[in-house]
Amino acid sequence: MENFDYYNPTRLINGKGKEKEIGTILSEDGISAVLILYGKNHIQKSGLLDETIKLLEENNIRYTLFGGVSSNPVLSHAQAAVIHAKKNKVNAILAIGGGSVVDEGKAIAVATKMDCEVWDLYTKTKAVGALPLYVILTLSATASEMNSGTVLTNEQTKEKFSFSSVHAFPKVSIVAPELTYSVPSNYFIYSAVDALSHVLEVYLTAETLPNIQKRFIENIILTVMETTERISADPKDYDARAEFSLAATWALNSLSTLGVKKYSFPNHMIEHSLSALYNVPHGAGLAVVIPAWMKWGEKKYRENLERLANNIFQLSTSLEAIVALENWFKKIGAPTRLADLLIDKNDIEKIADNAYLTSRRWRMTEIYSQKVITDILQLA
Amino acid sequence: MENFDYYNPTRLINGKGKEKEIGTILSEDGISAVLILYGKNHIQKSGLLDETIKLLEENNIRYTLFGGVSSNPVLSHAQAAVIHAKKNKVNAILAIGGGSVVDEGKAIAVATKMDCEVWDLYTKTKAVGALPLYVILTLSATASEMNSGTVLTNEQTKEKFSFSSVHAFPKVSIVAPELTYSVPSNYFIYSAVDALSHVLEVYLTAETLPNIQKRFIENIILTVMETTERISADPKDYDARAEFSLAATWALNSLSTLGVKKYSFPNHMIEHSLSALYNVPHGAGLAVVIPAWMKWGEKKYRENLERLANNIFQLSTSLEAIVALENWFKKIGAPTRLADLLIDKNDIEKIADNAYLTSRRWRMTEIYSQKVITDILQLA
Repeated sequence: MENFDYYNPTRLINGKGKEKEIGTILSEDGISAVLILYGKNHIQKSGLLDETIKLLEENNIRYTLFGGVSSNPVLSHAQAAVIHAKKNKVNAILAIGGGSVVDEGKAIAVATKMDCEVWDLYTKTKAVGALPLYVILTLSATASEMNSGTVLTNEQTKEKFSFSSVHAFPKVSIVAPELTYSVPSNYFIYSAVDALSHVLEVYLTAETLPNIQKRFIENIILTVMETTERISADPKDYDARAEFSLAATWALNSLSTLGVKKYSFPNHMIEHSLSALYNVPHGAGLAVVIPAWMKWGEKKYRENLERLANNIFQLSTSLEAIVALENWFKKIGAPTRLADLLIDKNDIEKIADNAYLTSRRWRMTEIYSQKVITDILQLA
Repeated sequence: MENFDYYNPTRLINGKGKEKEIGTILSEDGISAVLILYGKNHIQKSGLLDETIKLLEENNIRYTLFGGVSSNPVLSHAQAAVIHAKKNKVNAILAIGGGSVVDEGKAIAVATKMDCEVWDLYTKTKAVGALPLYVILTLSATASEMNSGTVLTNEQTKEKFSFSSVHAFPKVSIVAPELTYSVPSNYFIYSAVDALSHVLEVYLTAETLPNIQKRFIENIILTVMETTERISADPKDYDARAEFSLAATWALNSLSTLGVKKYSFPNHMIEHSLSALYNVPHGAGLAVVIPAWMKWGEKKYRENLERLANNIFQLSTSLEAIVALENWFKKIGAPTRLADLLIDKNDIEKIADNAYLTSRRWRMTEIYSQKVITDILQLA
């Protein structure tokens, strides 16, 4: 077991109709004015925004709206939100949406409190404080609702960077599984791939994995796969939605890596470039990159791939595991080739250059050369 | 999935030599004076107390010592500690020891801050604040290092009561697995039974258990069993110690019950009376009560016992599961009969009366009558 230092103060609420408690929760915390951050007009159509506003009004909480967060949140939008938050003198951020909204919410919460440039937080300035961030989650995938990380894309430089800070933990995250019923099926599939990838990357790249973590991760993989199939069959399967949400949170809130020795996220690193360059949904990009990466690393990760074959798919060889996972992606309707994303193979070198730069900037534990990234993408 | 509301702000540090960071940690938190709470003179002999004092002195932190916490912590000792803490104007409690010391530390931290009677917290007064509590754990078992519960025995009334509060979470808990090398083997065995029982009771009594929790709990059970055997074979197996500690913490820090419907802790309820009346170690009492309770409830819990048989012991029937668990307790050297604890069977009714009273006072979700408790204890 490697040493670890775990701290996660986010209060995670999961349950039927729990989004209706937001007014009381903010009020009990002494919040008097919030910026409501959201994405597209989905929460307007569903009535969730109106309902939330009513709850705030009932609790005498002033609010200001700021919509338009994109599925790969961008710097310019976050900058504008910070200006808006300061102008309206809010003392909390309320993010309503999926991981993108939460990620951008973290940046806004920190930059507003610190009165600093947003991009500096992703490149050089240490976060030292933040407005409290509250979340109503409408799509489970990234675990951003219960971790301290945030990813943002600088549209001008085409860089997708991240930072992590104890100040970036949401104070309270409300997961109301029924809110996820209306997620379009393709976005739900991408979210499943994303949640799966968070533990799969650790499971396959870890130098040593204590038994407790081996089983912890297998549990997440199996739960995501089982519940994804149940939800695909019946989008209103409440228990499957609730269980999927818990699995997605556990997949990247640090629990799965406690005591794990040397792991990395090469697929995320490569995928971030696809998102930054082509604005493809993160989960869709991952479904394309992961099987290609596994084929490329079949020898290197053979032992761990065999464990995956045995314990998840009841198969035996590494090659069988790769085929089984790729087939499962196809089965749920995820893309598995660059062509499925309408990305031209002549672009591969450009993507590889971007990914190499990004991985250096992110100080990844393992950095792949442009050559390696090109080889992997050729397999996609 | 049942609704849940999870919040656990304890910072959990686990690693080699991490106890040496206590001075820096307290200093960074602005602590200037602590009461060091501990049990027997074990930490004096081992040098841990002297080492800790040296670290405090290096960081200009004033300290006062308060030893003598017993393995079932008692009210009079906690009361005296509160007087001592107030007299010495400490602004934090540092508990060094196992679950008993942590449990008593929670009571002291709250009662000192609130300036209230200790026993009132266990019977009628709501905790509304606490001095920060720091922990150096020398024995993993109860998960008290990362939960909000505390159990204390009133020696005069022979009552063993508990309370739980967000104010009772330790601020920081340091688990340094090497410190557990010197735990006497019988106490280590009791700790293994205790950790196991926390998840076993949920696993067997739950009305519904989502798959993610079924597997989460099976992981804890398997990890505790595997690492207990490794540690019994080699008390200095660092990885086994570290993994055991993580499993013990996960067994009762709320993770294993998120979304679980209707579960109870009948064995703990009965065992608390054994501890209160005969001062037997908690884990030893549990090893005696659990197999008897399983025999009594073989029909009632048949389906869950069969799951235990299948997934833990690779057996099929409920009776086989009961025998397998009892044999495992015997194998590791735990007592399995009241006679092993030198408790006379003529005392059974007295124990049943005490347990019935306690379960009513604890407002257990399921209360057994004296008759049922007597029946169970007859089987022990």
